[in-house]
Parts: sequence; structure tokens; C-alpha cells
Amino acid sequence: MDAAHPRFDFAISATDGKARTGRIAMRRGAIRTPAFMPVGTAATVKAMKPEAVRATGADIILGNTYHLMLRPGAERIAKLGGLHRFMNWQHPILTDSGGYQVMSLSELRKLTEEGVGFRSHIDGSKHMLTPERSMEIQRLLGSDIVMAFDECPRADQERDVIASSMELSMRWAKRSRDGFDAGGEHAAGAALFGIQQGALDEDLRKISAEKLIEIGFDGYAVGGLAVGEGQEAMFATLDFAPDQLPADRPRYLMGVGKPDDLVGAVERGIDMFDCVLPTRSGRTGQAFTRTGPLNLRNARHAEDTAPLDEACKCAACRDYSRAYLHHLHKSGEILGAMLLTEHNLTFYQDLMAAMRGAIEEGRFAAFASDFRRDYLAER
Amino acid sequence: MDAAHPRFDFAISATDGKARTGRIAMRRGAIRTPAFMPVGTAATVKAMKPEAVRATGADIILGNTYHLMLRPGAERIAKLGGLHRFMNWQHPILTDSGGYQVMSLSELRKLTEEGVGFRSHIDGSKHMLTPERSMEIQRLLGSDIVMAFDECPRADQERDVIASSMELSMRWAKRSRDGFDAGGEHAAGAALFGIQQGALDEDLRKISAEKLIEIGFDGYAVGGLAVGEGQEAMFATLDFAPDQLPADRPRYLMGVGKPDDLVGAVERGIDMFDCVLPTRSGRTGQAFTRTGPLNLRNARHAEDTAPLDEACKCAACRDYSRAYLHHLHKSGEILGAMLLTEHNLTFYQDLMAAMRGAIEEGRFAAFASDFRRDYLAER
Repeated sequence: MDAAHPRFDFAISATDGKARTGRIAMRRGAIRTPAFMPVGTAATVKAMKPEAVRATGADIILGNTYHLMLRPGAERIAKLGGLHRFMNWQHPILTDSGGYQVMSLSELRKLTEEGVGFRSHIDGSKHMLTPERSMEIQRLLGSDIVMAFDECPRADQERDVIASSMELSMRWAKRSRDGFDAGGEHAAGAALFGIQQGALDEDLRKISAEKLIEIGFDGYAVGGLAVGEGQEAMFATLDFAPDQLPADRPRYLMGVGKPDDLVGAVERGIDMFDCVLPTRSGRTGQAFTRTGPLNLRNARHAEDTAPLDEACKCAACRDYSRAYLHHLHKSGEILGAMLLTEHNLTFYQDLMAAMRGAIEEGRFAAFASDFRRDYLAER
Repeated sequence: MDAAHPRFDFAISATDGKARTGRIAMRRGAIRTPAFMPVGTAATVKAMKPEAVRATGADIILGNTYHLMLRPGAERIAKLGGLHRFMNWQHPILTDSGGYQVMSLSELRKLTEEGVGFRSHIDGSKHMLTPERSMEIQRLLGSDIVMAFDECPRADQERDVIASSMELSMRWAKRSRDGFDAGGEHAAGAALFGIQQGALDEDLRKISAEKLIEIGFDGYAVGGLAVGEGQEAMFATLDFAPDQLPADRPRYLMGVGKPDDLVGAVERGIDMFDCVLPTRSGRTGQAFTRTGPLNLRNARHAEDTAPLDEACKCAACRDYSRAYLHHLHKSGEILGAMLLTEHNLTFYQDLMAAMRGAIEEGRFAAFASDFRRDYLAER
């Protein structure tokens, strides 16, 4: 351990039911938990300057190994000084392992014990992702939180398919650990997270958790959810899955989710999230507000001089009317994507801050109830 | 004249050859001349927040009557408090008359003495633009500098076609003056500019200028250039056209142009410009630099850690490498358009500031010579 780099450290400052709030200390800064990580797929949080992402309250962003290995390439980013310098984001970055996206985006993929061979969806070029190569890529990117390489199967398959996929992911978790350690990243202050699999099955999740704990990780992700199973099944799984993971380590629910998903997951003991929803919605005209999502392309906003959200302090709400945002989105203007992405990320970060405050003050149940009353009300 | 509104006032502080520098005082602020006006077609300077446009050094932007009348509509913008409030730009706005764009963009147009009937390129709806309606639309938008409604013919047509088109534009100029005056905009502090036509023909330009001067305007535009005639023919026309217009009024060269066009036009007595080039180029990967334009999509930039322009203070040059800008443009990322638009507008405004300084200090000829040596050098 290099003394210049603070050890990855997770301190829980308050719990309220299963919900926890705290702080992860890392080499590039602290992460307040529960934390939402905006997704910076291709070395950019789409339609946002990095300083604007930071200003919404983000402590950490996510980068995608699959996208970055294909374009501009991990070796190239390393040559250019690493991902932080490349994209001008000096705070922590978590990178996924590429395991999920290689299965959902690439072409002609072939899964073996060794890893996944595939062709790029961009130019058809041939590539191979293995646990070892995923660790190498994440090291080349300069990731602060490296994710183990895993396979994420559809949750609706037979139990034996889910079980053998989970077993494979656990063998890959061990190879990820070994690859990460061999790369010297731990000494440099980076962290490695394992990923629990087992879909909706409590026993398989338990086996997966035990295997991960035996290997030992800095944090643990709940993987294999938000793949179409629906919120009810996801929450049913989160009723047991986080409890199977070490209480003193961060728990990260991958790829989730809608605002009400986040509240329900924090209620069940989750500390970290990532999702493309606020950024993607910002480009398609969907705005998140305290009283639910609304579609700014709808004609009812065309002459509405009110701001998007009276209570929000973002530029879109401070300087513009709903009518203007409607006009921008109807006209396909880039500024529409810019402003609405900024608003949606602000909404997500404000929600995380409100949850942290509620947990700190021991009123999370009331907060969650009030939130759902306003956000999910029939209108 | 309402005492609350400063009169439109143009003061020339220095001349150097035919080049002039000065200041237009207006109700919403001053415009330093020679001035470049970024184009805000659909109530947004594409890919830029208005405060960022201002930060590049822009004193005034341009809005397009044709686009705004079709979407969201002039009456709607008026109902929403006017264009300045709608788009959150509190500085001066010049609006074109719609005359040029209705002929280049609309469908099924029919030109008569009365005006131009046409169908919208957006939804096929039927519209009519006349001098009176153009004045009304520009009043509804809340324009600070209103342009007379004119016809802009292709410059390569027979002299009699050019002549009769010019004569029509002069009759429309008178109707524009009358419509503008009837709307009370002059009393409210808005200005009206006439537009000289006559293509490349010195005699027709002279007749057009005399008719405009007889009507009387706050400023005079040189119209009908930058329509494919080439820089040499444009400069040849600018060798006489600005001199035909009043020396004590601003002269505005519409729709121009490339950086070397601006220098050559200032040299010939032009005070104001607008062009989509810096913003459009920002979206297609073309960057303007002191040593000429460069295409960031070119593979030679892929591993170049140098900034786009060492001497530029914009965010794109301060915080990012050419390699990153290359990556963003190759990946079609919105941030690529945002950063390069900001750079290009900064480049244009820096160029205008440098020209103003050179004129003020009586060294414009040397400035122009140095500029051309660096910008137009064969490489």
C-alpha cells in the first residue's frame, strides 16, 4: 500500500432500518452513500461538461469497459494519461467489467470458460474479453473501482442455467481477483468489487455471496437484476440479497434505476447505483420531477411559462420555461438534451442527498412514504 | 421616443483605411463593432447555453424569422414574453426578415408583388410572408434590430432579373419602413435596417443604396452576397458597395462568413456579420485556428495530446486534448458539438476583438497581412 494513496475505506455514519448512509474514502476523493453514479459510457456523460456533472452533486461516475475498449481503445487511453485526464474528470470513476455489455451489444459472441469472444458492434473487429483482460483494461483506464468480470444471464431462465452461469461468474471472480492483484492496482489505491449472481433465487444468491466473501473484495455488487424482471421481483430479491453480503462493505445495485427503484433499494440496504435513465431520458424529453416523470414533448407544455420544477435549482428550472424546453425537444435542439440531462441528474443527486439526510435523521420510512405518495400518485 | 430607451446610436471611435471600429448603443446593451453575431436559428445558438455564448464575447445574436414563425410561432413567443425571455438572452437580438430563408428552405413558394406564399418545410402548413407580416413577426419576437423584408436572388442571373428583383426589394423596403413605424417599434427603441441588393453590379447597387437612403434606416445591410459567387467576386463588390451606404451608419454584411472573409470585409468598411459557419462547423468536427481550419475527425488527431489551439482560452482548449475532441466527434457525442462550437465562437469573437484593437491602434493593414499569412498558408 502506497502511503500516498488513502486506503479504500467505507464508514457508515447512520443506519435506519436496513438503510445506511456513510462515506467511502478513496484516492481521488470521497463518495457519499447512498450514491448515484451518472453513466459516462464513451468517456463522456452525454450532453454534459464534467464540471456540470460535478455541480449536480455527483461524487463518482461510471465508465464502460466494453465501449472504451472498442473506441478509442484502452491502450490508447493509457497512452493519453488515463481516463480521468482524457475526459477531464478528476474524481473517482467506477468501471464496469464489460461482461454485461459484451453479451447485450456485441455481435457473434462466443462464451467459453476462458471468456467471451465477439465482434465489435462499431466496426466488426474481433475481440476477446476474459477476466484477466478485463482487469488489464480497467487498469489501463485508471479505474478507481474495478468490477469483476462476470456473466449476467436473463433472470427468466431455468434454475440450472442460472446456477451454472453463477458458478462460472464465481470462477471468473477468482480470476478477476488474481488479475487485479497481479496488476498492482490495489497497492495504487484502486478497489475491486465482486458481483453476486443467482438471479431471483435466494439459495443461489447465498452460494454466490459465500464464494465472493471467500475470495474477498472491497465492495460487493448485486448483479443480474434490472434485466426485465420487474420492480416487484427485484424488490423481492433485494429483500434477501443485500443481507447475504458483508454489512461493513459497500453494496452496489448495478444498472438501477427509476427514482422509486432507488428509494426501495436503499430501504433494503443498497449503497450505490448507476443507471443511464436520467441521461438517456434527458435526450428524449422525459423529465423527472417530485410528482413523477413528465414528457416535455407533450403539447400541453407548449405555452406553459412555469419552470419544470419550482423546487429545483438547476439551470433548466432556474432560467427557462416548460414552453421553451418543449420547443427545444420538439425541434431536436442539442440545448434541449443539455438542459434536461442537467435537470435529471440534479433530480437524481437531490434525491440521493435527501435519502442520506433522512437516514442520518432516522426518518427514512417517513421520507420513503412521502416520496412514493408524491412520485407515484395517479394523476 | 421613450426616454427610458436609449436611442439607437452608432459612434465610430477610430478608422484605419476603410476599416472602422466603434460602438452601437441600444436598449439592451452595446455592440462593439466590427461585430460577429452568432446565429440562434430556432431560439438557441445550437449546442450552447446563452451565458456561454455571452462569455465568448458576443454582444448580439441573430434570430431567424422564418424558423421562429413556423416553430414555435411568433404569436406564441410574444405570449411567452418575447424571444429574449423565451431563450434567456437579455442582450440585443437582430432578426432577419425571413426573405432569404423562405426562398431557400420553404416548399411550393409563390412570389408576388404582395409577398411570398409558401408551405412550411416542417409540416407543410401554408403561410404568407409580406413586408408588413415580417415587421409584425419581428415586433412580436421583440427584435432589437429588425431587417427589412427583401428578395435575395441568385447572383448569377441576367442583369434584368437582378434589376427587377432589386426594384421589388426597394418597394418592399418602403413597405417595411411603413410597417415598422406603424408598429411603434422605433419609439420602443428598436432599430430598422434596410438591405442593399443588386448582386455584383455597381450601378444597380448604387440605385439600391440611393433608394434605401431616401427611405431612411438606422443601419444598412449589404445583401445578396455569400450566395455562391466566391470570395473574389464578393470582395470586388465590397470594393464599392459599402461606400455607397452612409458612412455614419452601421454596415452589415449578411451571412458572411469564413474568417478570411471577415478580415477582407472589415478592410472594405463592413461593421457587422452573421454566419452559421462557426456553429455548424462545431457540430461537424471542423475547428478554426490561427493557422487555418482543421478537421478533428482526421485520424492524425487520435493520439495528439496537444490542445486544439495553445493560444485560445476556451474550455475546449483549456481542458481537453485534440485526441479527446477527435474521439468525441468520431463517436458522435453531443459534448463534441458543445466544445467545438464554444471554441469556434471564441475564435470568431477573438478575431473580431483583434480587428477592433488593430483598427484602434492604426495597424489594421499589418494585422490583416499577418492574419492571412498564418491562416491561409499552404501546409
